[in-house]
This record gives sequence, structure tokens and C-alpha cells, in this order.
Amino acid sequence: MTDDVKPAPARPRRLPRDVRERQILDAAVQVFSRHGYHAASMDEISDVAGVSKPMIYAYLGAKEDLFAKCVSREAARLLEAVRMGLHADLPPDMQLWHGLRGFYQFVAAHRDGWTVLHRQALTVGGQFAGEVNDLRARAIEMVSTLVVTTGTKKGLGDVAEFSGPALAVSLVGAAESLADWWLDHPDVSDSVLASWLMNLVWLGFNDLVEGEVWRPQ
Amino acid sequence: MTDDVKPAPARPRRLPRDVRERQILDAAVQVFSRHGYHAASMDEISDVAGVSKPMIYAYLGAKEDLFAKCVSREAARLLEAVRMGLHADLPPDMQLWHGLRGFYQFVAAHRDGWTVLHRQALTVGGQFAGEVNDLRARAIEMVSTLVVTTGTKKGLGDVAEFSGPALAVSLVGAAESLADWWLDHPDVSDSVLASWLMNLVWLGFNDLVEGEVWRPQ
Repeated sequence: MTDDVKPAPARPRRLPRDVRERQILDAAVQVFSRHGYHAASMDEISDVAGVSKPMIYAYLGAKEDLFAKCVSREAARLLEAVRMGLHADLPPDMQLWHGLRGFYQFVAAHRDGWTVLHRQALTVGGQFAGEVNDLRARAIEMVSTLVVTTGTKKGLGDVAEFSGPALAVSLVGAAESLADWWLDHPDVSDSVLASWLMNLVWLGFNDLVEGEVWRPQ
Repeated sequence: MTDDVKPAPARPRRLPRDVRERQILDAAVQVFSRHGYHAASMDEISDVAGVSKPMIYAYLGAKEDLFAKCVSREAARLLEAVRMGLHADLPPDMQLWHGLRGFYQFVAAHRDGWTVLHRQALTVGGQFAGEVNDLRARAIEMVSTLVVTTGTKKGLGDVAEFSGPALAVSLVGAAESLADWWLDHPDVSDSVLASWLMNLVWLGFNDLVEGEVWRPQ
């Protein structure tokens, strides 16, 4: 801290279009996350963004278009966060670890974005739910590839082909469910969350590929 | 089979009220599952049930009441199916195994009921989503108790108290996600589904309580 009195930064009257669009989308994600699609108002989005309604309509369209663009942006960000972790040159457990951390770091940094994707978009249904289901399918596909590749390297190709997709579906469901729980338990760190899943799921998967199988007594 | 010609059973003109109510609810669950809450019509429910609309209104109320009663009935059935598996006198892995089998047997026998709970009720939101979230919370509580009890018996009380609820949340999320996948892969048996989860999750959990921990390299 200093006692210097700084002049207020000059407020530019005209921002580049992409900056304005980002401001509008940031505001829209926040408002949609808080109220849901139907109850969210363009007035509030305009207030939060500090951008006039006519400018919002001109740049990004009506509420439906705006919501669609929010869903697309957040879905692309989430997928990118997970994909960055899954480096094919890392061992499979480290790929999963970094993929999970990427996911939870996205949720931590874009809590409103996660709420829009996981709660609001599915509730509205239609094309929005379709986009979220596509996102889910791509995440499952990435994990499934990892599981099948690992199983195949261990000489369990047939088993891995048969059960890999379902194990991936389970893992993605577990990760989402835990992300939801996290919204109400924000004091747990993203690495603790990812560790829980690695310990729960990876150790179990590892036993499987090492030939240890659970059977009812 | 015999060649005896049996007389057609007499069709009673007046059925007991509880039988009628069950017919109506069965039809309503089917129609809500197929079309969702908003698109479902009382006309179609009346047709499928073979019960007149005035009688439906008199017995069970308007569409909103009917949907609420569907959600309550299916939620109670699902919870009972899981609870029956979790006998406290069984070893913990067998409790989880029977709990999971109960869950998947419910989904197999009441596919429409599961769709109403897992897809439609959450989409409609409000009290309906609230009831489904309560159901979820109770399932998580049951699994959490199982995990914490098992961890505590192994001398890991503090760890189990800290991570047990989150592990239960993960497991319930995995089980739901796999149930959803199952709707598109109905040729897999309920015991295969439950085995996948036991192998994925229980073996991992068991490693944990035996002190084997995954850590990033």
C-alpha cells in the first residue's frame, strides 16, 4: 500500500467488440447461473455487464442466442481443461489425475459456468441439453480410450473393450457428482477431490487389470 | 397348457379405489416418462389407464398432483429397493453389492419410474426436483454410513469421517450415471452392472482401508 494518489484510470468509451462480447457473456453466465434460463432477465444481464440492451442484441442476439453462446463457451472451456490433462505421453494414472484436476480447476474458476452447464442447460432441455450431453459423451470417450488402452496393454483387450465404456461412464458420473457436492463444500481443495477419485476409482481399476476381481461370497 | 375352454373372466364394473389409483399412477408414470411433464396430457393418461378423466381428477387431482404422486411413489420404491439390500448383518461389501443390485433391479422393473425421477422431475424443478434431491441425499447417507462404519472398524475413523461422505457421493453418482447408460444398453444384466461398480469402486475403497494409497508420481 502507498499513499500516492493515483489518477482514476481513463475509462475508454469504445472497447473492441471481442472485449465487449466477453463482458456480456461473463455477465450472462453469472445471471443465468443465479436465476436459471427462464427467470433470468436481459435487464439484469445489461446491468451486470454495463452494456446497453440494444448493444447486447446487436452483438450476441436475443436471450436464447445468448444462452446458447454461454453453454457453448463454457462447454468448450471445460473440455479443453480436461483434454489438457490427458497427455498421451504420460502414464495412464497421471493422465487421469491431470484430467480430473483440470476438471476441478475449471469448476473452481468457473463456478457459474459449471452451474449453467450442469444444472440450467439440462433443465431447459432441447438443443441446450443436447450440447451438454455431447460434452458428456466426449468426456466419457476420452476416459474410455484411456481405460481401453491401459487394459489392452495389460493383455485384457476383450475385457477392456466390453467394460471400458461403462467404467468410463461410471467415472464421469462420479466426478460430476463430486463436483456438485463441492459447490456446498468449497473449503476442500481441487487436488483433494481428484485424490479421492483416484483412490476410489484408479486403485479399483488397477486391481482389475492386475487380475484381482471382486466376487460376491 | 390344456385344451379346456375357460370362460372369459368377468370384467368387474367397479374396482376398489386402490386398484384404480394404481392403474392411474402406472399410466401416468408411463406417459410422463415418454413425453415429460409439460407435454404429457391428461387425455393420454386417461386413455392408457382406461379410466375417465373426471375419475382421475376425483381420485388423484390435477396434473401437478398426479406428477407429485408419481414422483413420491417411484422415489419410495427406489429407496426401498436399495435399503432392502443394505442388511447391517452382512459384511459391508455384500451390503453394497445387494444395495446396487436392488437399485438396478428397480431400474429394470420400473424403467419409466427411473426416467420420471432421473430426467423429468429434475427438469421440471421446484418441489419435484427437491424430492429427487432428497432421495439422492438419503441414498448418499446410507452409503456414507456404510463407508464410515467400515473405515472406523479398520481404525481409520478420522479419515473415514472426512472422506466418507464424498466417497459416497462419488459412488452414487457413478451408479446413477451407469443406470442412465444402461437405458441404451439393455442387454447387459443388472448383476454385470453391479459387478462393474463393485470392482471399480469397492476394490479401490478396500485398498484405501488397507492403507494402499495412490499418489501422483
